[in-house]
Amino acid sequence: MIVSKEKLEKYAQTVLVHFGETKENAKIVAESMVRADMRGVTTHGTYLLEVIKKRKNGQQLTLPTTVSVVYDQDAVALLDGNDGIGMVGGHKALDVAIEKARIYGIGMVLLRNTNNVGTLSTYTQKAADQGMIAFMCGNAAPSMAPWGGMEAYFGTSPFSVGIPVPGDTCYNADMAATVVARGKIRKALRQGKEIPAGWAQDENGAPTTDPAKAMKGTLFPIGGPKGSAIAMTIDIIAGLLSGSNYARSVKSFHILDGRTGLGAAFIVFDPVRFMPRKTFDKKMDGYIEDVKSVKLAEGFTEIMLPGEIEYRKEKESEKFGITIDEQQYENLKKLLVEAGCPVE
Amino acid sequence: MIVSKEKLEKYAQTVLVHFGETKENAKIVAESMVRADMRGVTTHGTYLLEVIKKRKNGQQLTLPTTVSVVYDQDAVALLDGNDGIGMVGGHKALDVAIEKARIYGIGMVLLRNTNNVGTLSTYTQKAADQGMIAFMCGNAAPSMAPWGGMEAYFGTSPFSVGIPVPGDTCYNADMAATVVARGKIRKALRQGKEIPAGWAQDENGAPTTDPAKAMKGTLFPIGGPKGSAIAMTIDIIAGLLSGSNYARSVKSFHILDGRTGLGAAFIVFDPVRFMPRKTFDKKMDGYIEDVKSVKLAEGFTEIMLPGEIEYRKEKESEKFGITIDEQQYENLKKLLVEAGCPVE
Repeated sequence: MIVSKEKLEKYAQTVLVHFGETKENAKIVAESMVRADMRGVTTHGTYLLEVIKKRKNGQQLTLPTTVSVVYDQDAVALLDGNDGIGMVGGHKALDVAIEKARIYGIGMVLLRNTNNVGTLSTYTQKAADQGMIAFMCGNAAPSMAPWGGMEAYFGTSPFSVGIPVPGDTCYNADMAATVVARGKIRKALRQGKEIPAGWAQDENGAPTTDPAKAMKGTLFPIGGPKGSAIAMTIDIIAGLLSGSNYARSVKSFHILDGRTGLGAAFIVFDPVRFMPRKTFDKKMDGYIEDVKSVKLAEGFTEIMLPGEIEYRKEKESEKFGITIDEQQYENLKKLLVEAGCPVE
Repeated sequence: MIVSKEKLEKYAQTVLVHFGETKENAKIVAESMVRADMRGVTTHGTYLLEVIKKRKNGQQLTLPTTVSVVYDQDAVALLDGNDGIGMVGGHKALDVAIEKARIYGIGMVLLRNTNNVGTLSTYTQKAADQGMIAFMCGNAAPSMAPWGGMEAYFGTSPFSVGIPVPGDTCYNADMAATVVARGKIRKALRQGKEIPAGWAQDENGAPTTDPAKAMKGTLFPIGGPKGSAIAMTIDIIAGLLSGSNYARSVKSFHILDGRTGLGAAFIVFDPVRFMPRKTFDKKMDGYIEDVKSVKLAEGFTEIMLPGEIEYRKEKESEKFGITIDEQQYENLKKLLVEAGCPVE
């Protein structure tokens, strides 16, 4: 199914307002979800509306979302997402961090007690669009063992960096500290295929290529102990230090098992403090041209910048409409009927 | 050879002053090098004295080291290491970042035109010892190709995080964005052993397990495109944005091929802005106890915190003395004779 950006945003907004979200908040959430769909990151797109409904009905998500300022002084602030929708708390936190970066050169905001914030790239790209360099990370429900262990303890621990670049491209790194997402293992299981060595270990802590065993076990971190240390650091800063849940106490957004208690961290700084905008733009332009001129390895046709694949996909979706899975579109239509606004 | 910390620091200081470094700077550098030796990271220990001598004689390192403040306003600053010894510029930059974190909650300092700064963990641990959470990264001479490429472009791109923890342990992540250091491949070559798949590619961009081919090729990043994005981000922030060299223009510290033009970035923030010190300490204590209680995977005897192995090694060296390779000790003795202060 192909839907236009405007229509999908309107649909999502209508559904969210029906759930009990404010119009203003619903707009932020809808834009964030639709951007994820446009970028092909459908796991963080309008599909999440179903999950939000389930959590709201199960009293494990509070609507309308309110965001409280717990602490705000100098270049740092601490916000509380009050168990509302993650995109609302996330965008508020990012805005505060950007404002602080304008005033102090760098700003840091921690957000606690929130829910799934969606794709991190939508935040760091928003900051980059305003000329800022932004770093963001968040903890997540346990799926990775600490290095040397075999019990799920850290989440996928996503982190993202956005850097402003001139021209029709983007610089937006957005990754998990695990080698792959659980979804890839689930897909291999469905297709009856083995998974490559190095993706996961079974429930007894032995490396496995059997997707069924891997699903019962834990995901491997990138670079072994390195990814484990990255995940632990993210969990401590975004979770423990923000006053949120952390480690084993973080709950999945997709299962009704109590409030998720997710935390996120935002660090934004202004590159103009270090060199004039024009110089920075010119240097970045040269950098991109140079890195793309590197001789290609076997099987590659182009050196891509971080996030460039998603950026191109987004531009395509803008032009030709957004591809939505049939089943998901049916679900969306049902939600619209419930909201009293059936699709015309 | 076993040497005491006090003696080795005195030796290194004497040699550095003879090279033309000031007494005050020599103390900083000596302490940093000896701490690396104590932690078993001998590649960044007193071994570097030889390299500094070579670079100084080749007019590619300027002594005494001076550090200029290019910009210092609000929570950010930019320093210039004027091609002197990296540890001097590095520690000055860290001190400024810590001071800013005290005043503003978070501080950021970029350092340009420096040389090899030694082990990053000595900096982030110093900040943690003062109660701060610190992040540091630096660019390095090309050894990794951008993902999809086959030419050396990024350095190993080291980064480190230090977090204050109570009790007789440490939290100090210190890693490169490559799967392994080049030294490990060199070692396999010497021993006539194959290297594991996933470490490196040959000069034609094909993955290899032959250490000889790997030495002519490039190191693989952790997590494929993820590590490549981490390296690119570090190169842009520590190198390009600081006004230092970056990408292909960064030169090795170990070869006389022009000034290295290395850059480094420091971000320090004060956890006390987010929760009282006592609460944070108590939570970190619980976190450490909990993560160490995770069931062990095959072949492991303990879950280690980031940097804990090096921390224990350092304590051991403090107690029993520092183990120095015989050949390196001979070199050090020669340097001391040249300085007019032979070993008693």
